[in-house]
Parts: sequence; structure tokens; C-alpha cells
Amino acid sequence: MGSTCVRIAIDAMGGDHAPNEIVAGAVRASEELGVKVLLVGDPQQIASALPPKTNLERVEIVPAEEAIAMDEEPLNAVRRKRKASINVAMDLVKREQADAIFSAGHSGAAMASALLRLGRLPGVDRPAIGTVFPTIKAGKPVLILDVGANVDCRPKFLEQFAVIGSIYSQYVLGTDEPKVGLLNIGEEDTKGNELALRTHQLLKENSNINFIGNAEGRDVLSGEFDVIVCDGFVGNILLKFAEAIGGVILQILREELPQGLHGQIGTAILKPNLKRIKQRMDHAEHGGALLLGVSGVCLIGHGSSQAPSVFNAIRMAKEAVDNQVMQQLQSQYEILHSTSD
Amino acid sequence: MGSTCVRIAIDAMGGDHAPNEIVAGAVRASEELGVKVLLVGDPQQIASALPPKTNLERVEIVPAEEAIAMDEEPLNAVRRKRKASINVAMDLVKREQADAIFSAGHSGAAMASALLRLGRLPGVDRPAIGTVFPTIKAGKPVLILDVGANVDCRPKFLEQFAVIGSIYSQYVLGTDEPKVGLLNIGEEDTKGNELALRTHQLLKENSNINFIGNAEGRDVLSGEFDVIVCDGFVGNILLKFAEAIGGVILQILREELPQGLHGQIGTAILKPNLKRIKQRMDHAEHGGALLLGVSGVCLIGHGSSQAPSVFNAIRMAKEAVDNQVMQQLQSQYEILHSTSD
Repeated sequence: MGSTCVRIAIDAMGGDHAPNEIVAGAVRASEELGVKVLLVGDPQQIASALPPKTNLERVEIVPAEEAIAMDEEPLNAVRRKRKASINVAMDLVKREQADAIFSAGHSGAAMASALLRLGRLPGVDRPAIGTVFPTIKAGKPVLILDVGANVDCRPKFLEQFAVIGSIYSQYVLGTDEPKVGLLNIGEEDTKGNELALRTHQLLKENSNINFIGNAEGRDVLSGEFDVIVCDGFVGNILLKFAEAIGGVILQILREELPQGLHGQIGTAILKPNLKRIKQRMDHAEHGGALLLGVSGVCLIGHGSSQAPSVFNAIRMAKEAVDNQVMQQLQSQYEILHSTSD
Repeated sequence: MGSTCVRIAIDAMGGDHAPNEIVAGAVRASEELGVKVLLVGDPQQIASALPPKTNLERVEIVPAEEAIAMDEEPLNAVRRKRKASINVAMDLVKREQADAIFSAGHSGAAMASALLRLGRLPGVDRPAIGTVFPTIKAGKPVLILDVGANVDCRPKFLEQFAVIGSIYSQYVLGTDEPKVGLLNIGEEDTKGNELALRTHQLLKENSNINFIGNAEGRDVLSGEFDVIVCDGFVGNILLKFAEAIGGVILQILREELPQGLHGQIGTAILKPNLKRIKQRMDHAEHGGALLLGVSGVCLIGHGSSQAPSVFNAIRMAKEAVDNQVMQQLQSQYEILHSTSD
């Protein structure tokens, strides 16, 4: 270890706004959060992306020769481009030279690289992608998983998601006894498709989680649940719908609010309040998605991530490391291993 | 027939605000849309729910002895209570004494009653529930089906939904060559779970619909699609999430906009504009859900329906009858019959 501060490997070449926004968010995190950031990628590009007067005390550049493009087939690309930034960054975690990784690049490639280099946690059949949604209760987010890694699931996968999600909610988001829900079409035990019906039973019988029942679509943002599990097909559709609807509403506000003279005056007066509303609905505030079930703390940013999202994702990564989430997950080996359908 | 005006059977006893709001919406429709409304239920309760000075020219009360409560098991209740308002109303359609039916009561009971009394259209394996969502393009709604009738689907069910949905979109919503999408997690043909992959193939090969490809969660409200098909599990979660999110955003607006003195003044000035925004996001504006694939025009309202929703649903029912949607569907028998997987 040597250093006592948390070390985050950053795929500086991944994302629509790489390397500039990635580097800017990482440098800010090094200054404000006291983490060490290992910026992986083309040294020249990274160096010129560093903001002027950057304090280099906790910033290190780690060279990587290549990068994986968004349109590449992930598994092939990860295997072929051994020196791609995502692989070099992942290797830092594998060799314990970094405690966590962040990438806003090709999420399939990040997943493939994590699986090949870090492997799955013992007892986990399939890693999942978890995303934190804001809820109607300020400061009480909900962790939804899986939002895209596994489109066809078996009940025991969802049961494992529930166990892993609970541990993350507790040790990363600081929730006491996280309330777990199963995404479903009704509250009653007898509602749902085959997968939901069988998963409901497993969750009810699992004494290691605090399963409080089915969560309907309307309950997702209610703040009544801390963790909601679903298969990656439903989760991905919900995530993309939710991301888009924020934009739709903001567009309706922009169109309708300033209508007429009253509208223009009122909107001008309300400017600071509108900005706060935009912030509250903004995805960037809630950082990256978590790659759950692999042997390492991996955060995946949106391709469109800018510096604030990068900063927030690194903060989540630091929380995960500080609270020893990996050690907690490893100690649950027996619990995970005992899941079955 | 006798009368030339469209006759709508109304389950006056169904819904949280029955009979008052149901009757109010129906009476308004009889006056403004020129339809005849057949109000089915307890005659005394209906009579006292009639607004003062109601023009009774196109209003008729049809007695029914019972009603089905929201917590009853639908199939049993429909079978046991033969004289329940939903059954009596459905019989009016069956005996061609009404051209369409509206109910805001137990939607499972409405479905069961329609199946038992009207039956399925020839060639249709499973009826679906379709809902019209507003999109980002004003005046360009999208029809989503199934939103809850069938939680486990086979590819050919979704193919049939696409055919029926296209006909409704064309003859009820007035869309030329409706653009059909398959709800999925990516644009590419190779994306999706097993059901989506197999359905994609069927839709691509079906020359009776204008299939333009997969619709991701973010595309639902884009206005690029006129009809989107999915299984009733995903559709129901999406519908309930969408319904709730409108309320969540309005609550954030209510909390954040009036903050501070500036906020209070600005909000007061903006009151009319805010009201218009609420309207644009309001589900009531878009009427009821359609029960698709049964032999009759059936509209199902939200349990919380008030007079404006009832009015809008009746308007949709009238459009369906005026544009001979049932005749169009029946003439597609061969097309539907040829769907397979």
C-alpha cells in the first residue's frame, strides 16, 4: 500500500468528453476529496488536459497505448487491445496499485475487462449494473439493479442482486438495514410474470436481506425502497426512460414557462430556483453506475459524463473503499453461495 | 340500429369517484360530442348524480343491481354477479344496443367480462391493454401495448399487438402508416432478451405493418414511434412509473419554485403558465386505455378517473366507432390469423 489515501484508477480516454472533462473531474476529486487519481491513457493528451495550476501531489499519469471505441464489440476489443486504457486501469486494481476504477467509456468493454481481469466475487453467477436514482424524499436515493448487464435472468440471479445491492446500499450509501423490493406489477405475492413470482419466494425466504415486498413502477421514486431488483431488460428500459423524461419535462418548462409577458418576468425572477430544480433532477448529481458482483470497486459513468459526474462517481468510489465494501461482500461468500433456485 | 348517433354504454358504478364524476363526464360528452350515453347502474344513485338542468335527450339510465368492488377476484366476480353494472353494460354491446363501452372500475373485471361476453377477435390469441402516452411532439401521441394484460408473452402475441395497434393508431388516432417499434434495450437487431430477439424477426417479416425497429426507453416519448409493443410486465411497470413521475416533478416544482421572496413573487406571476404545464403532463387529457383484441370497442379508465378523463375516453370511443375500427380489425382476420412463431 504505502500511501494511506484512496487510489482511484481513471480511464482518462473513455467517454464523449474524454480526456478533458474526465481529467478535470478527477483533478478536482484529488484536491477536494483527498484521493489519489491515476490517470490512464495517452500521456500527452492527459498532460494537456490538466487544468492550469493543477496540484500534482495526488495526480499520476499512467501511460496506455490504445483506447476502445464506442462501436467496438466489447469482448473482442478487450481481448485484442491488451494495452487499452480500460485494461491498463483494470490491471492497476488487479495488482492492488489502485483501490477502485472509474470509466465513462464503452460500458460493455468495462464489464468485459472487469470480468476477465478481476473476475466475479465467489458465489456470484452474474455481475449486475446498479444505478442510483433520486427519489421524492430528498437525500434518500434508491439503488436499482440490474439496469442492463443481464437481459435474461434466473430467479437466483435476482436473489444475488438483492444481497449485493443491500451490502452496497449499507456500506456505500450509508443505509441502515436497506429495504429491498422486487420490481413487479402489483403488491400482492401472486402478481407478476414467472420470473417475478419465483424470485418473490426466494427473497421472502432469504434471511440475510430485509425484503419488504414488490415495488410497482409508481413506487420506484417513492423513497419507500432502498434497493430494487429487476432483470437487466426491464431495468435498462426504465433507466433510459427515466433519463429521457427529465429532459422532456425540462423542455416543457422551457417552452411553457416564459410564455407571455407575465411568463417572461416570472421566469426571470425564478431563475435561481429553476437552476436548483434542474440540479435536483440532474443525473450528474448522482454519479456513475456501479458494476456489482466483480472482485473490485468499479464505477461506470455515462458516455456523456462531464467533470461533475466524474467527481461524483469518484466520491462514490471513495465511499465504497473507505467503508470496506469489498471486504463486506467477501465475508458474505457463504450467504451468496447459498442462494439457489 | 334506429338511432344514427354513436351509443356508449357507461359503467356508472365503476371507479373511485363513481357515480358522480362518471355521470358528469358522460353527460358532458352527450352534450358536446353528440353521443348517446347509456348510464348503467343503480338508477337512484345515477339520477341524483345527474347535474342540474341535464338535457336528457341523449342520456338513458339502464338499471343494474350490483357492482364489482376493486378487491374482488375478477373472473369469479364477473361470473357470480351476472347483473353487475360492468356485465349489463357489456351485454348492451353484445346485443348491439351500444357501439362501445367505458368503465373506470376494476380493470381485470372489465377484461374478464369482455372476454366472456364479447369474445376475442378471430385470429387473436390474447387481448392487450393499450395506452396513449403524450410525446415530446405536441399532438403526436404514441400507443403503447400491452400495459398489463399479459405478463408472460410469446413472440406471436407481440406480433398480433403490433397489427391491432397499427389499426387502432390509424383509425382511432388518425395516423397515416403508423410507425411501429419494439420496446428493447438497444437499436441493433441483435440486442434484447429472447422474447425481443424473436419478436424483432417476426415484426421485420410482417408486411402488414410499418415496423421501423427497436424503441429504447429513451425513445418512448420522442414522438418517433406511433405504436410501441412490449409484454404486459414491462409495459405495466413503464406505465405506472410514467404516471408517478409526473407527480414527482410537480412536487419538486411545488417545493422548489416558491422558495424565498423572489420565488414567491415569481410563482404567483407564473400561475397561469404553471397550470398549463400541469395540463400538458396530465394523464386525464389522454383519456382511457383501450382493450384491444376483443370483439368490441372497450375503453378502460383509471380508477381515479374524474369527469375530464371520462369525457376524453368517450371521445376516443366515438372516434373508434366513427372510423369503423372494428370492421377494419375484422377484415384483417387473415392477417392476424397468419401470425405465428
